[in-house]
Amino acid sequence: MLTAEIIAIGSELLTPDKTDTNSLWLTEKLNSIGIEVMLKTIVGDDEARLEETIKDAYKRSSVVIMTGGLGPTEDDITRKTAAKALKKTLVLDEKVLEDIKRRFEGWGRRMPEINARQAMVIHGAEVLPNPNGSAPGMYYSRDDKDVVILPGPPREMKPMFENYVMEKLTKKAGAVRVVRRILRVVGLGESAVDELIAPVYTQYTNPQTTILFNRTETEVHLIAKAKTEEECNKIIDEVEIQISEKLGNAIFAFRGETMEEIISLKLSVKGFTLATAESCTGGLIAERLTEISGSSKFFMEGVVTYSNEAKIRTLGVKRKLIEKHGAVSAEVAEAMAVGVKKRAGTDFGISVTGIAGPTGGTDEKPVGLVYIALADDIHVEHRRLRLPGDRHLIRWRASQAALELLRRRLL
Amino acid sequence: MLTAEIIAIGSELLTPDKTDTNSLWLTEKLNSIGIEVMLKTIVGDDEARLEETIKDAYKRSSVVIMTGGLGPTEDDITRKTAAKALKKTLVLDEKVLEDIKRRFEGWGRRMPEINARQAMVIHGAEVLPNPNGSAPGMYYSRDDKDVVILPGPPREMKPMFENYVMEKLTKKAGAVRVVRRILRVVGLGESAVDELIAPVYTQYTNPQTTILFNRTETEVHLIAKAKTEEECNKIIDEVEIQISEKLGNAIFAFRGETMEEIISLKLSVKGFTLATAESCTGGLIAERLTEISGSSKFFMEGVVTYSNEAKIRTLGVKRKLIEKHGAVSAEVAEAMAVGVKKRAGTDFGISVTGIAGPTGGTDEKPVGLVYIALADDIHVEHRRLRLPGDRHLIRWRASQAALELLRRRLL
Repeated sequence: MLTAEIIAIGSELLTPDKTDTNSLWLTEKLNSIGIEVMLKTIVGDDEARLEETIKDAYKRSSVVIMTGGLGPTEDDITRKTAAKALKKTLVLDEKVLEDIKRRFEGWGRRMPEINARQAMVIHGAEVLPNPNGSAPGMYYSRDDKDVVILPGPPREMKPMFENYVMEKLTKKAGAVRVVRRILRVVGLGESAVDELIAPVYTQYTNPQTTILFNRTETEVHLIAKAKTEEECNKIIDEVEIQISEKLGNAIFAFRGETMEEIISLKLSVKGFTLATAESCTGGLIAERLTEISGSSKFFMEGVVTYSNEAKIRTLGVKRKLIEKHGAVSAEVAEAMAVGVKKRAGTDFGISVTGIAGPTGGTDEKPVGLVYIALADDIHVEHRRLRLPGDRHLIRWRASQAALELLRRRLL
Repeated sequence: MLTAEIIAIGSELLTPDKTDTNSLWLTEKLNSIGIEVMLKTIVGDDEARLEETIKDAYKRSSVVIMTGGLGPTEDDITRKTAAKALKKTLVLDEKVLEDIKRRFEGWGRRMPEINARQAMVIHGAEVLPNPNGSAPGMYYSRDDKDVVILPGPPREMKPMFENYVMEKLTKKAGAVRVVRRILRVVGLGESAVDELIAPVYTQYTNPQTTILFNRTETEVHLIAKAKTEEECNKIIDEVEIQISEKLGNAIFAFRGETMEEIISLKLSVKGFTLATAESCTGGLIAERLTEISGSSKFFMEGVVTYSNEAKIRTLGVKRKLIEKHGAVSAEVAEAMAVGVKKRAGTDFGISVTGIAGPTGGTDEKPVGLVYIALADDIHVEHRRLRLPGDRHLIRWRASQAALELLRRRLL
């Protein structure tokens, strides 16, 4: 498989608020034709560092893609530094110069002297036209290695890549396709998943298996390479079946879906309706579910009963129950789930009550103690959770656990 | 000025959908103590490339910061590769091993064998405790160069950097301070803000002024350099006063606070209480407010009345009103705000009803049409909004507009 490195050039990309998004777009394009991105560098207007970066990348990888630093000013160093790193000279391209001059004339202006710099190209490189800006790109090949130099602005870079670079690289990459499938797991950590499925995935180099932790979910990424997409999928299927035997119902999504997407799908298909009663999650469950378009089919009503009075008034929780067990208790969680189900007249009611912190915890009921409950027409059940993390994470994990309780019921 | 390089490690950061956000946060922290970031690298689980990257960075820069790749699995290669690049061995740290074991015991589980890997540390490095995860960090100094190894999850990385790294680097950097102050603006775009304040900020090179657009808010960043923090603040104050004269109440936060933080502060200080009634925002307003610790002081109850029946049943909206004007109307928005205020017995009630899309729009009531309303003891008012963007953005913008309506009332 061909390997690529991407180099983003420009000091503005090294500030706290700018992120290099070109490389994400390029990565997707490269992956789709079977080229793997092995390294990305973001370098400022620093000639020594850029030269070293280009040399390293050229030495290690088959494809080197640079973006940015092609402007007309002194600190646009990509042209001269790339030439130096490749041990080539820069030559003036008359045709490019004419194009730039004409661009300026089109705006009724004379080309400023400094823009002539943009007509300097690496000797031996193919010039890539830029209809959306003055800096042309370059495509340089030597010893079966390809170096591509593209402008930084996405509206110049993207069409140039699609129109002039994609086809060359597709030919170079040959008949290779890469497919990535994401299985999402709930309730098991990275290492627990690894222990369970290592006996399977270590027997395969294709697909390649990566285990990742993403907020509260462990993800298993299966990446297959083959000549066609169909073949890739076959290769993944074989391993997926075995992994799914090991992990069973802990896998909640086989195509990278979120928990709320899965719940939404299951409820919609079965025609069930849902209402939510939230205390410590403060509306997060409702918010997650209603982020899904079409959720009005199954989501009828949610209440955020933050105060005890609201629990009593809106959910019909008995005051005595709260006095006896406290608002954070199995009894109150169950009463909330039953209460909201009754109020909204839905098939299911789910509830959460707990202590998200950082304040409000006691020895008996510490921060992270959360009760979730699920009511349907016949019965109500609850779970007691001790969740780690800060306020944000505890709330997220509690919402996830409540949705998971519902998912299990829907299986 | 000291120079730093940041290396983000993990193959997931080389996929099309993952971006390395740690480095932005680290850049801001480093800049604040006068350390400039010269290069950032994102490298996968590739030992040869990572080793070369570490060696290059160590050779070129005074500070090298690595994040990620400290997990327990085989493809977490940071520990061994960093040791190799620095020509050091890895040694088992008994204390760290004990800590990891205790963490698992705390969850009532036995430590999986492979987690013992996380107790291997570079010989001669200082171990940085990780209260939020099992992988400790490391701080290694030699020849006036500092190498810092941090875990990848932001929730582990950030406190570790703040508690154990910041002080050391501050001492190393010496007497240069950089202070960044963020003013957040609502209701005005980037160019409108620029037009208003350019006459002010163009007169100063210190502080440096940047105008950024962030989701639904325009931000004005004022960045000052001086010998002390106090001096930086003085430099910023002078410009801030003039900018704030130009922008007036459009500035809702002078220290980078979020809208919900500002609302939370204002309500708490004045002892007011609030209830929310949401349709298209689906609980987002409640969720944003209750994310603030201490919100139980002012937030009493929220309802997500997604169905018409819920609006009638729980908020006392008249069926006839919905039939006459539709659920997305000024009349229903006002009735919802009044209804939830009455139900919860609060000082204020806010409501949102609208069409978040992508489906459900008509010629008369298109996607993005949103009504928000605010009720207090004396009167109720509404706003009609036409919001651009996709479902996610429309919901976010609607929640922001509703909170802004309340903020203006509280001024």
